[in-house]
Amino acid sequence: MTINATSLPAHIEHAMLGTMRVPRFDDVQRAAQAIAPHVRRTQLLRSPRLDALAGGAVWLKPESLQVTGSFKARGAFNALLALTPAERQRGVVAYSTGNHGQAIAWAARQLGVSATIVMPVDAPKNKVARAIAQGAQVVHYDREKESREDIGMRLLAETGGTLVPPGDHPDVLAAQGTVALEALEDLPPGEREKLGLFAAPCGGGGLMAGCCLVLDALSPQARRVAVEPASFDDTVRSLQSGRRETNAPGARTLCDALQAATPAELPFAINQPLLSQAVSVTDDEVAHAMRFALEELHLVVEPGGSVALAALLAGHLSLDGQGAVIVLSGGNVDLPVLQAAMVRAER
Amino acid sequence: MTINATSLPAHIEHAMLGTMRVPRFDDVQRAAQAIAPHVRRTQLLRSPRLDALAGGAVWLKPESLQVTGSFKARGAFNALLALTPAERQRGVVAYSTGNHGQAIAWAARQLGVSATIVMPVDAPKNKVARAIAQGAQVVHYDREKESREDIGMRLLAETGGTLVPPGDHPDVLAAQGTVALEALEDLPPGEREKLGLFAAPCGGGGLMAGCCLVLDALSPQARRVAVEPASFDDTVRSLQSGRRETNAPGARTLCDALQAATPAELPFAINQPLLSQAVSVTDDEVAHAMRFALEELHLVVEPGGSVALAALLAGHLSLDGQGAVIVLSGGNVDLPVLQAAMVRAER
Repeated sequence: MTINATSLPAHIEHAMLGTMRVPRFDDVQRAAQAIAPHVRRTQLLRSPRLDALAGGAVWLKPESLQVTGSFKARGAFNALLALTPAERQRGVVAYSTGNHGQAIAWAARQLGVSATIVMPVDAPKNKVARAIAQGAQVVHYDREKESREDIGMRLLAETGGTLVPPGDHPDVLAAQGTVALEALEDLPPGEREKLGLFAAPCGGGGLMAGCCLVLDALSPQARRVAVEPASFDDTVRSLQSGRRETNAPGARTLCDALQAATPAELPFAINQPLLSQAVSVTDDEVAHAMRFALEELHLVVEPGGSVALAALLAGHLSLDGQGAVIVLSGGNVDLPVLQAAMVRAER
Repeated sequence: MTINATSLPAHIEHAMLGTMRVPRFDDVQRAAQAIAPHVRRTQLLRSPRLDALAGGAVWLKPESLQVTGSFKARGAFNALLALTPAERQRGVVAYSTGNHGQAIAWAARQLGVSATIVMPVDAPKNKVARAIAQGAQVVHYDREKESREDIGMRLLAETGGTLVPPGDHPDVLAAQGTVALEALEDLPPGEREKLGLFAAPCGGGGLMAGCCLVLDALSPQARRVAVEPASFDDTVRSLQSGRRETNAPGARTLCDALQAATPAELPFAINQPLLSQAVSVTDDEVAHAMRFALEELHLVVEPGGSVALAALLAGHLSLDGQGAVIVLSGGNVDLPVLQAAMVRAER
């Protein structure tokens, strides 16, 4: 299914994908207004060393410094702000490898909504601890044996609450696009019109889809590249085949935040026509990027958050002297994982 | 010698300390204008966890994300911008444990000035490597056996260049004050007038002195606290005795950036009347703060850069519900030192 959402004139009704409204650029603009008081407008960062290595000007969008430590705070807030008073009363349920759950827990607390988070038992400990610290209930499941969707559905039946999925939700997806909207607005004068590349991490694809809506509207000449872990390259293969491909069961990656089984339906409907390309990176390339971020940028970036930087550093994205925006999507990493990555990057 | 620089009306000539002009608040304002195109206006960061631990709202000023990885870029640029064309031609010399040297090397390259940096042989490797990468000449000395001042003077005689000291220089000191100026300007409306505390790391005292000029002018009610390593607590003792005390020869600290032998003369002339207090922190407290920065803030902060945060986390600074600005002054740390600090913080 291919929908070029941004080709629709504003007076025409939104396209629908099943029961889901397909968001457009104006939804991202509205989301930006709605979430502005709640989230951080992360400052674009530069590194002369990175520019030299990349062969062009690179603006980093460090969502690792976002409230809750990842861009997911944007979508979570926007989705909860859109709930009716009755829906707020019944609470929300989210299933998440961590960052989305943490964001939902945080947003729920800010808005006085009760939240239940379904997390895999092997989720990073700090992510679990933070969700609990935010006052959320955490329900664990075994990634290999159980389906988070089934558990989510059971909880919804029990509580009458609202499910807020990390990707397949118009309000979430639109708000993730504010990452690109802010980045383009914050570029120096004249750079937006000639930007060569926008690259961001891709799990289910919600971040990239929201950003694609913005890029298509404001910086259509920029290549839009989604970056995935090599063992979770479902979007790479889905763009090739034209349908949503799945990853091998039992696949492993350093990037815990990007372990989606398949591209989420709504994001893929936007990403398929609007993405220029998807590329993948190895765990070694990810570890190298994490080390570069730590030593050169003084930033802690989690494995999944550093895949776009990894692709750039590994030479998978060429700039040819043009400017690039690279999204560092999150920073929530347990210290042992960070330390192991530093050791791995030394090899 | 006690000089309340900011009590001088603007039309009166600057006070002098020997041959050095004592800078005032309007010098900081001018420096802010001059360096704005060259340095980064680092974004104030918040952490709900830190607020809860500190018992008040804490705004972090992350100069670890500054160009060259520390606030020193501010003073270096301002000093080099003030050189005459003839002085620029003859080049500059700086002695530095690292961050100032790196900043001078960077500013010199930007302005096409040749730079020679005098560094101790045990300076962090990444700082030395970066100065060289910037095109500077690096001259090493033994911290125990030689005086960096003597070596600097010899180089000046040889080259006819201009010495840019890290603290005893009006243009450097004034520009370091832009850290506080930006922080106060960027606080939410109403917060500046009721800010309770401003704390920053203190080596020679230049950063704190520049900031004191700003705080005295714009936020006089805020306590101004300099923070030092326990084994280099010369400012703590100097404030008590009323004269510039020295540290024990051979003293050791994790904080390589704060190993000044004694408060620099010009900064102390400002700090003595304007500082509310100086406190010191142990290496264990520093390691704990570095770990907190890494895990909670997703920031790499070097040992010396984290002492003010360390003092807050260790309970040496109480907020009593008031707001605080805490400066994280730099992020240049070799990976083994960072790793050792993480291990130390586990104990």
